[in-house]
Amino acid sequence: MEENKYSDDVYGRARVQDSDELKAYYKELETLGAGALWTVANDIEPWEPRANCIPMLWKYDDLRSLVLKSSELVTPEQAGRRVVYLVNDKLKHISAAVGLLYTGIQVTRPGESTSAHKHKASALRFIMEGKNGYTVVDGNKIMLEVNDFVITPNSTWHEHGVEEDGETCIWQDGLDIPLVNMLEANDYAVYDGKQPLEKPLNYSPITYGCAGLVPNETHWDKPYSPLFKYSWSKVYPALIEALKVNDINPFDGIFMKYSNPLTGGHVMQTMGAAMQLLPAGFKGKAHRHTGSFVYQCAKGQGYTIINGKRFDWKERDIFCVPSWAWHEHHNLSETEDACLFNFNDLPVIESLGLFQSRVLEENNGHQQVQ
Amino acid sequence: MEENKYSDDVYGRARVQDSDELKAYYKELETLGAGALWTVANDIEPWEPRANCIPMLWKYDDLRSLVLKSSELVTPEQAGRRVVYLVNDKLKHISAAVGLLYTGIQVTRPGESTSAHKHKASALRFIMEGKNGYTVVDGNKIMLEVNDFVITPNSTWHEHGVEEDGETCIWQDGLDIPLVNMLEANDYAVYDGKQPLEKPLNYSPITYGCAGLVPNETHWDKPYSPLFKYSWSKVYPALIEALKVNDINPFDGIFMKYSNPLTGGHVMQTMGAAMQLLPAGFKGKAHRHTGSFVYQCAKGQGYTIINGKRFDWKERDIFCVPSWAWHEHHNLSETEDACLFNFNDLPVIESLGLFQSRVLEENNGHQQVQ
Amino acid sequence: MEENKYSDDVYGRARVQDSDELKAYYKELETLGAGALWTVANDIEPWEPRANCIPMLWKYDDLRSLVLKSSELVTPEQAGRRVVYLVNDKLKHISAAVGLLYTGIQVTRPGESTSAHKHKASALRFIMEGKNGYTVVDGNKIMLEVNDFVITPNSTWHEHGVEEDGETCIWQDGLDIPLVNMLEANDYAVYDGKQPLEKPLNYSPITYGCAGLVPNETHWDKPYSPLFKYSWSKVYPALIEALKVNDINPFDGIFMKYSNPLTGGHVMQTMGAAMQLLPAGFKGKAHRHTGSFVYQCAKGQGYTIINGKRFDWKERDIFCVPSWAWHEHHNLSETEDACLFNFNDLPVIESLGLFQSRVLEENNGHQQVQ
Amino acid sequence: MEENKYSDDVYGRARVQDSDELKAYYKELETLGAGALWTVANDIEPWEPRANCIPMLWKYDDLRSLVLKSSELVTPEQAGRRVVYLVNDKLKHISAAVGLLYTGIQVTRPGESTSAHKHKASALRFIMEGKNGYTVVDGNKIMLEVNDFVITPNSTWHEHGVEEDGETCIWQDGLDIPLVNMLEANDYAVYDGKQPLEKPLNYSPITYGCAGLVPNETHWDKPYSPLFKYSWSKVYPALIEALKVNDINPFDGIFMKYSNPLTGGHVMQTMGAAMQLLPAGFKGKAHRHTGSFVYQCAKGQGYTIINGKRFDWKERDIFCVPSWAWHEHHNLSETEDACLFNFNDLPVIESLGLFQSRVLEENNGHQQVQ
Repeated sequence: MEENKYSDDVYGRARVQDSDELKAYYKELETLGAGALWTVANDIEPWEPRANCIPMLWKYDDLRSLVLKSSELVTPEQAGRRVVYLVNDKLKHISAAVGLLYTGIQVTRPGESTSAHKHKASALRFIMEGKNGYTVVDGNKIMLEVNDFVITPNSTWHEHGVEEDGETCIWQDGLDIPLVNMLEANDYAVYDGKQPLEKPLNYSPITYGCAGLVPNETHWDKPYSPLFKYSWSKVYPALIEALKVNDINPFDGIFMKYSNPLTGGHVMQTMGAAMQLLPAGFKGKAHRHTGSFVYQCAKGQGYTIINGKRFDWKERDIFCVPSWAWHEHHNLSETEDACLFNFNDLPVIESLGLFQSRVLEENNGHQQVQ
Repeated sequence: MEENKYSDDVYGRARVQDSDELKAYYKELETLGAGALWTVANDIEPWEPRANCIPMLWKYDDLRSLVLKSSELVTPEQAGRRVVYLVNDKLKHISAAVGLLYTGIQVTRPGESTSAHKHKASALRFIMEGKNGYTVVDGNKIMLEVNDFVITPNSTWHEHGVEEDGETCIWQDGLDIPLVNMLEANDYAVYDGKQPLEKPLNYSPITYGCAGLVPNETHWDKPYSPLFKYSWSKVYPALIEALKVNDINPFDGIFMKYSNPLTGGHVMQTMGAAMQLLPAGFKGKAHRHTGSFVYQCAKGQGYTIINGKRFDWKERDIFCVPSWAWHEHHNLSETEDACLFNFNDLPVIESLGLFQSRVLEENNGHQQVQ
Repeated sequence: MEENKYSDDVYGRARVQDSDELKAYYKELETLGAGALWTVANDIEPWEPRANCIPMLWKYDDLRSLVLKSSELVTPEQAGRRVVYLVNDKLKHISAAVGLLYTGIQVTRPGESTSAHKHKASALRFIMEGKNGYTVVDGNKIMLEVNDFVITPNSTWHEHGVEEDGETCIWQDGLDIPLVNMLEANDYAVYDGKQPLEKPLNYSPITYGCAGLVPNETHWDKPYSPLFKYSWSKVYPALIEALKVNDINPFDGIFMKYSNPLTGGHVMQTMGAAMQLLPAGFKGKAHRHTGSFVYQCAKGQGYTIINGKRFDWKERDIFCVPSWAWHEHHNLSETEDACLFNFNDLPVIESLGLFQSRVLEENNGHQQVQ
Repeated sequence: MEENKYSDDVYGRARVQDSDELKAYYKELETLGAGALWTVANDIEPWEPRANCIPMLWKYDDLRSLVLKSSELVTPEQAGRRVVYLVNDKLKHISAAVGLLYTGIQVTRPGESTSAHKHKASALRFIMEGKNGYTVVDGNKIMLEVNDFVITPNSTWHEHGVEEDGETCIWQDGLDIPLVNMLEANDYAVYDGKQPLEKPLNYSPITYGCAGLVPNETHWDKPYSPLFKYSWSKVYPALIEALKVNDINPFDGIFMKYSNPLTGGHVMQTMGAAMQLLPAGFKGKAHRHTGSFVYQCAKGQGYTIINGKRFDWKERDIFCVPSWAWHEHHNLSETEDACLFNFNDLPVIESLGLFQSRVLEENNGHQQVQ
């Protein structure tokens, strides 16, 4: 849309013409591990934020059988974790789904569990199907249900499994591996033996599960939420209630951020997450902003137009919106609401002072679909 | 207990003997608006924190009829607010119940309402009886039920009332009036006309009522909680759940702080509040700390030993524990839990660096009752 | 000025007429440790901030000889600290100079030193005369010169003295004793023996003495400034420089706050301090605000009009401005600047949300002197 | 050193053997924009932090003439900014010197100036030679001298120049361009016309130039330091003083961080900077930590051993230490101190929870030089 509004042929941009003398000069610089800034300046200093990747949608109908098949092909012991990861066509070299975010789909059969490990990368999960799955985070075992959101922050020991009497569980993993690798700071450790359970079952979601009540005793000095699980059984009713007393955001419907109850901020330092409800018949307007987003449809069906291309989704489909891409969400149903879960890198973008956003003014705020 | 362990006849304390010359010197100083520090030093610099007041208990059986009688004697129009306030025998000159905290019991009949006003003093309420009472805080009307806790922070416009179809409401007010007056900073304003309702009914408790979910839109820059009401219907079940997975504190049972969901801190800058559950048969140990506390029994019956004196309480009774007083709570029932609501000045004590506490070591942690 | 603009005979204020029935009711309440709020409401909820004290000025010409005389009358061993304290005519019961602030003038002869002690009250000093005085704060000995400002925060071990080869030192002490006593949280301890010197001489002012440089190693988690001394030899030139590039504030000239270099905030949790320069010929306008201030003239001469009364001051004179009092500062010299040091309770007022201010609009911003 | 201590042939790592069935499975996944995590897991989750680049040193003797030559080859009008940038052999695709940091050497002749511009990338400069150079940051013009450090934060309008009566200035630029591009958030804007001077010359360094003094008036809500310049004329004497009263760090000598005087933290959100003094004869021990560093020798000469390779430097030489590289600094002189300026990405590493460090235990803390 505004693609052509910027020209580099203006004062303040590099506009040096090549010459033999300059070419020789550039060669000499190269031998010294140097270069002339003006040969790269316009490229590395774009007029507007520029994504390194493209919008993509992964249909669960396509992937589910392949995910399940992995449980026949490899064991958790061999694979470490049995995960099909989703990779952006432009980011295969860093195994990223969008921006510097990784995502994958993990499958665990009844009675299986992974070994406990930890890493500087942070992780989160969103439960897609199954029964009696659980995670253990820093000694606290927590049961998981469909559409629950759970975190395993930076350097916490964690492991997952499904009880013998459960049903095969599938969940989406989200990690900041590409970011942490790019910052050259990742690490990995395997727990020697079985992680001991230091807290009663579901300690964290029970203790921090009432809004506005915190235990007097706890001195929590960690940079992530003490509330490890956000239950769909509480979140969805809260969205329905919020819908009654809040204005509907023209871009995002009812958009509630998962937050650390001790700070009101993001659940972890490097990744945020949110759940949004698109009311029946919702036709969102388009905006764009910095920050990379991975979405999963938790309920209903609809489509999202991203940079002029329509992506149709229904329950369990996963798609991504790159930084600075125009996007608008539509609920296809006139009678049922739709819910989109997302995780994102907003904690990074915000803490580094890099957030900006823009509203689409033209065409009443809606993109032309190509 | 330790009363006699300190002597002022030691190096580092004032030990000047009077003399005629000194007496003359003191007189001369006095004419200049001055004095000799050593004549007052030991008094104004006590070895340990020293309360200016005494423990007291106010029995609801005694007060209820008098509170109701006030509604026959004066109208809200005449009285401003129809309140019986509770005053410490040692603090009548500042109308305080304990330390620098004020408390009172307010009665409102069906169809009555107060005028809207605001002040630099902060206020809170704990509902004792009635139906269909409400408060309006900064344009947000909120319905109140028994044992709900509600805040009306510093400089928010507020008013209260009971719907025509309600039942006479009685609630406890808590304010920091003595503190704000001592800091010479109080003020008062009457709203000209009726405060307009800017938000749908119960907007605040609905919007912030799910632990770990916050609206993405709100930019809350106020120094108090956006959650104005803490409902007993949510708090009591949360205490019961917390009891299952948390250690029981030997002094306080299960002690949960009402908190600002955007900070994890106190609900207001000058007053905090908490609800504690004493399990059936709980026999608390004694400790003491700085900070002044006003308690109301929300459920059950028991007693608290304060500085060696036993105070028996049951539902709706109010009592206070002064700063640095030894105190221990006992649940008299072996089968039912008891709940104590409290409000306090901990936000002041903590933000000014004045908190300290001590555990009673002797006699297995229990006081000798006088 | 606005004194008469408020009437209590309005809706929203208490306007109950006495009656025999009410009198009987009040008596009954009194027997239960209670009262009717409407009998005290208008008093404890004033329309505007109301000071409990009056403006006062203490002339150094009057006090100096008496201060020195104390060093003949009592020894430090007897007196603890040899201090003449300055007391507000309205606050003798709490030994306060203004609001909840204490101030005094301490004298120490060459070779004398006090015993080390600590207390929950915070202290600060402003040096008035002498040579080779020193303070020791938490094991760090620091030399003091005239017009230096030095802090001894809450619960730090501290002691003072003058070297054998020094000259009698006089300094002003400022403490928050009345505040901490009112909050029932003060304590006192005497160091057993001599405080060991843990750091080289002047460690703190040297290490934190360059603006914008902080040691990489230090993990400072204390709620007060790591910079214990603010040297006049650096502060005065900085004010002169600041005067060249900053606008002159109509009320306060060039007003620079002493700050914690690790927070930019006040030097301690309960007391702030500042130095202001009134340029030659400066005729300040009047404003008022909450917060209590004790001033000492560090340089020059002038006068301050406080609530319509003129107080003339010159070097070393001390005066106070109560909360919410109108005040304006005038430099009497047309050729020399004047400097006023002050300390105040703004950290308390601000952290509790109680600051407000007002500009005098009438008479071109100047008060009528009575 | 520890390179070989980790094996991937352990429980908890991916150890799947290839098979025809698996190969077919991988192909099928690839058609869907997916892959099997276990084929990349060990690579993207390394046991320890892994740098994407190598240590490098750029000798000023080599570069100076080429930098000056650029001022003959191109004009500022053509080039935008006349800069030779230094690029890591492994990071040419992102124009980075180390990690996600860019650095370059800029030359400006007397009378030249750049156009004003701004970008989401943050910038800093360290002055290498010349006279009467200046920068203008958000309307505040500031004069620059050799070894001064100056910041132009994220989205501030800035421009630079040298007065007509000055001498050719050369300075090092540091920017976070690779980081901001990787986060897909950079932008660029050219100021239309000449940036107006809103403040007197040197307003910022004068106003914030005295440690512990801050203007009372300013309400600074920006996420970077209000002190834009850190003068060598103040910093070097401060280091000399600090040396007298502080312990010498075995790795870094006297290491002082440039800090925001209103927070005690880093000068900007994405880049930090520091100056360290290596005392005469200093032989630093080796440690390693996450975070990327670019150094410039500001004074003296010595060498740094990085991952077992020795890099000799003298005044104006620039070198880099990648994340997690072992490094130790040595001052070659037995009589003169040496000073190293550095800038780094620690604000990012720290705010995202990714800092860790390790001390070299073996060989008395010194590396074997290859």
